[in-house]
Amino acid sequence: MEGTIGAVQLVGVHHVALAVEDLDAAVATYRTLFDAEIELEERNEEQGVDAVYLRVGDGRVELVSPLEEDTPVGRFLAKRGEGMHHVAFEVDDVDGAVGELASRGAQMIDDEPRPGLAGKRVAFVHPESLSGVLAEIVGA
Amino acid sequence: MEGTIGAVQLVGVHHVALAVEDLDAAVATYRTLFDAEIELEERNEEQGVDAVYLRVGDGRVELVSPLEEDTPVGRFLAKRGEGMHHVAFEVDDVDGAVGELASRGAQMIDDEPRPGLAGKRVAFVHPESLSGVLAEIVGA
Repeated sequence: MEGTIGAVQLVGVHHVALAVEDLDAAVATYRTLFDAEIELEERNEEQGVDAVYLRVGDGRVELVSPLEEDTPVGRFLAKRGEGMHHVAFEVDDVDGAVGELASRGAQMIDDEPRPGLAGKRVAFVHPESLSGVLAEIVGA
Repeated sequence: MEGTIGAVQLVGVHHVALAVEDLDAAVATYRTLFDAEIELEERNEEQGVDAVYLRVGDGRVELVSPLEEDTPVGRFLAKRGEGMHHVAFEVDDVDGAVGELASRGAQMIDDEPRPGLAGKRVAFVHPESLSGVLAEIVGA
């Protein structure tokens, strides 16, 4: 069942992202408990993270750890500790989604999409617009 | 692509749960921004929450608000504020999954499944076992 944001197709939840201190240890834990398979390991310099996509059934968990303390994920860990960091929704048209969400009153962190993992373009919605939840919009 | 936990089939991410202060306001926000459809509205007295399942594309977001301050979600909100609360994984055999996860060293909050939403049986895994993330296992 696909959804929409106006004329944009909303595929569904692309991943759930968890901020961790020790990426290798967290990957090992998810592999041990859930037989999770590594789909992608990638450094994103712009976001200041090392990231791993894990397949958990047909779902996807992203584990992220910061490259430096003075990065968004580094500050998140210092303030809140390890835990759930953001939820990502996949759309067929990230530019269209950014425009539509902004027109509906969402406070966008990114007015223009920027490079995400796996060559996709992404944009983040500010938690203040979503009851405290950071959301990522991932292009197809 | 289905996964496994030993002999248990792991379907994937069943939902991502968000703890909110004002359930109606949060539902309205997700409906406005993401054209989300309400799939279920239910009170779970045992967990002390009012809950709404929203379909966001083929994904599912659960919004939960506490019935009382002295409930797990009430204490979560007092301590951390609104935000992501837990991630739920769907399996075909929740009893088998609980046994398998415990045998793999996971600290289970529920040694036996208990009633969840929509008549399903569920069990929670302690965040200490999952890098700070509370996980719910949802039976088929």
